[in-house]
Amino acid sequence: MTVERSDESAEVDRTRGRREKRRLEAFSDGVFAIAVTLLVLEFKVPSTSGLPPGGLFEVLRGEWPSYFAYLLSFGTVLIMWVNHHVLLDYIREVDHAFLYLNGLLLMTITLVPFPTSLLARYADQKDAHVAAAVYCGLLTLIAIAFNLVWWYAAHRNRLLSTGHDGGGQAVTRRYMLGPLLYLVATGVAFFSVMAALLICVAMALFFALPYRPPGSQSRGG
Amino acid sequence: MTVERSDESAEVDRTRGRREKRRLEAFSDGVFAIAVTLLVLEFKVPSTSGLPPGGLFEVLRGEWPSYFAYLLSFGTVLIMWVNHHVLLDYIREVDHAFLYLNGLLLMTITLVPFPTSLLARYADQKDAHVAAAVYCGLLTLIAIAFNLVWWYAAHRNRLLSTGHDGGGQAVTRRYMLGPLLYLVATGVAFFSVMAALLICVAMALFFALPYRPPGSQSRGG
Amino acid sequence: MTVERSDESAEVDRTRGRREKRRLEAFSDGVFAIAVTLLVLEFKVPSTSGLPPGGLFEVLRGEWPSYFAYLLSFGTVLIMWVNHHVLLDYIREVDHAFLYLNGLLLMTITLVPFPTSLLARYADQKDAHVAAAVYCGLLTLIAIAFNLVWWYAAHRNRLLSTGHDGGGQAVTRRYMLGPLLYLVATGVAFFSVMAALLICVAMALFFALPYRPPGSQSRGG
Amino acid sequence: MTVERSDESAEVDRTRGRREKRRLEAFSDGVFAIAVTLLVLEFKVPSTSGLPPGGLFEVLRGEWPSYFAYLLSFGTVLIMWVNHHVLLDYIREVDHAFLYLNGLLLMTITLVPFPTSLLARYADQKDAHVAAAVYCGLLTLIAIAFNLVWWYAAHRNRLLSTGHDGGGQAVTRRYMLGPLLYLVATGVAFFSVMAALLICVAMALFFALPYRPPGSQSRGG
Repeated sequence: MTVERSDESAEVDRTRGRREKRRLEAFSDGVFAIAVTLLVLEFKVPSTSGLPPGGLFEVLRGEWPSYFAYLLSFGTVLIMWVNHHVLLDYIREVDHAFLYLNGLLLMTITLVPFPTSLLARYADQKDAHVAAAVYCGLLTLIAIAFNLVWWYAAHRNRLLSTGHDGGGQAVTRRYMLGPLLYLVATGVAFFSVMAALLICVAMALFFALPYRPPGSQSRGG
Repeated sequence: MTVERSDESAEVDRTRGRREKRRLEAFSDGVFAIAVTLLVLEFKVPSTSGLPPGGLFEVLRGEWPSYFAYLLSFGTVLIMWVNHHVLLDYIREVDHAFLYLNGLLLMTITLVPFPTSLLARYADQKDAHVAAAVYCGLLTLIAIAFNLVWWYAAHRNRLLSTGHDGGGQAVTRRYMLGPLLYLVATGVAFFSVMAALLICVAMALFFALPYRPPGSQSRGG
Repeated sequence: MTVERSDESAEVDRTRGRREKRRLEAFSDGVFAIAVTLLVLEFKVPSTSGLPPGGLFEVLRGEWPSYFAYLLSFGTVLIMWVNHHVLLDYIREVDHAFLYLNGLLLMTITLVPFPTSLLARYADQKDAHVAAAVYCGLLTLIAIAFNLVWWYAAHRNRLLSTGHDGGGQAVTRRYMLGPLLYLVATGVAFFSVMAALLICVAMALFFALPYRPPGSQSRGG
Repeated sequence: MTVERSDESAEVDRTRGRREKRRLEAFSDGVFAIAVTLLVLEFKVPSTSGLPPGGLFEVLRGEWPSYFAYLLSFGTVLIMWVNHHVLLDYIREVDHAFLYLNGLLLMTITLVPFPTSLLARYADQKDAHVAAAVYCGLLTLIAIAFNLVWWYAAHRNRLLSTGHDGGGQAVTRRYMLGPLLYLVATGVAFFSVMAALLICVAMALFFALPYRPPGSQSRGG
């Protein structure tokens, strides 16, 4: 009898866990969507007074670091959004701790507009390497948060759907590249801003590639 | 016959109440997501002219009150979002008055970015205690709104799902701690900013802990 | 045979119309949620230099027009959100024109933060009546858009669910009060800012009251 | 046996593709909703000091380029939102590449507030043609992104629902007008700002009209 009630109560928890997962998806999608849209606020309309000889066109052309920073940040957050989907795809249900770890990840995502503006404004200044290090540093934090979310869910298949047993470890190895290489980029930023940002671009492209671990359900045949 | 039609009409109301609950969840999630994402606008890119000898790095290091205020506010709103979920989990359906009480709660949540910026800017000023009191004061208002929402729903089990009879009172006692201790923090702010903010941090941690009242459905076995 | 295929194609349209309704709800909820959350950007952190003798406290106390404008706008938009729900509750499906009329309504809603800031900044200035007239003028436009949306849907029961036949006309009469009284408030603003804003407060309270037209489904017994 | 498992795995992929479609819709709706709501931040409250003789009213009247730019941008993004719905209506499921192409489209959409502000501020300046060209240039990019999304999905009916075979090519021809005419507008902007903007208005109206290609499912009878 006790066992039966336990089963029932576990079932109630599981149903709640699945419903919570849907709301977590919606909340996360909202945060990603807003973070990505706020990036446009970085662009400031140039003052109509005191324009250079080339006028507005020359001013806008001189803003190329802003455009580059915008493209890199939008692309990176978009790719993270796709990866967040893939990650949640492996997950059966969420629990209390997962909500907070995911919240930590979202916090690092919402911070992206600040280092983006910093990078845009300081790209052609003496302190460009500080701005680039802060930028790469935040990407390192995002990657660490991503790994924490994944490790927590994948540890002893705590929250994973069945059928991902073989794939889980491959995903773990793949995600681990994030913190390592972004940390390298942060260090490189003090020597070469360009090299640090190239690592960020390369990482974005790497994580943009579709990936399915060996042994996952949809690798039939 | 009259009774039957009454029953039917009550059923229609209940179906509407449950559909309304889903849309209220989506709207609330949206407001929480946006409030939490707007916090990043607090961070201002330092002007490239007039940097101190230590350059951008020194300026960013001096901004620690901003980082602390950001972390505290993001954490607090995230924890409130989780608690809002837990609260709605107890609720079967919503009615007209509930929509407005929940709207009052959302209003206090959307205000968070303002005292956060205030605290960040004034933390190292003579008027830090005013900024901290405003900050704690808003958290008090949020906690009061939370209690109003809960009291309204729990009064004579007005909107609660069945199976929470025993647990309801425990939740009531737990929630009541919010307004009381945040009010204490508001008073303490006039004497010690540090002590007031420590209470806020402690409250956040307390409400972050998972909680299930005795007698709730999922406490089987 | 032709008739049958026509029926089928009408059925496809109706299914699409109902799915479109759900997405329209989600989009509208998003716009309402963002408009309401952006209102907080109206509050500016006072500069730490040049504070009056009373310090930060005196400055914040002097900002009461901001707080009033914020409360009025948040309340009004929240009430409009609830009424938008009630309106959509009557509606069975949406069509192309409805999407655009609803878009017009959303446009007027997203404008709310601007006159709110205007009112807050000019409330204690010589030109307060201009700011109040712009504020009431926008509310008039919102109310007109609301009526257009409703008239379009209710005309010959174009998009209404069944069972609202009697109620539709009562709703029409009730909504018509909006443009009329907000227009009066706009005119009154040129003579008395206070009187104009009192009309806005009264209107908000009036539309906040729950309402179910006579003859609606859920008025059984 | 191998074939069977392949079928099963294809089925799993298809289910995932349909679920992904729903989340893509929600994310896209969020980005559209935020981009459209951020447009209001373009309006700046005039400083209370240094008003012209006509006071606040004269200042607000002088801001007509802002109102025009706001209306044009809100209308254009709203119409694009509706067209995005129609496009997704043709689509059965989404794949990895589609997520990124749609992300590219969303990126161009989130940029809209910047050229809108630029146009508003420079409309009565010597450099108005540069601002108008940037504005039309972004609309060209949006239209190109729209076409990429569509071409990718429609190529050999890769992601289309069945029953749109005849209609697909008509849609392709219709969408192609976008990049072509917006590019013309971009060129025209250097000679006549007014003419360029008139093309944008005309394009908005053209794409606002409901459209169903010949041979689509709901054209029965």
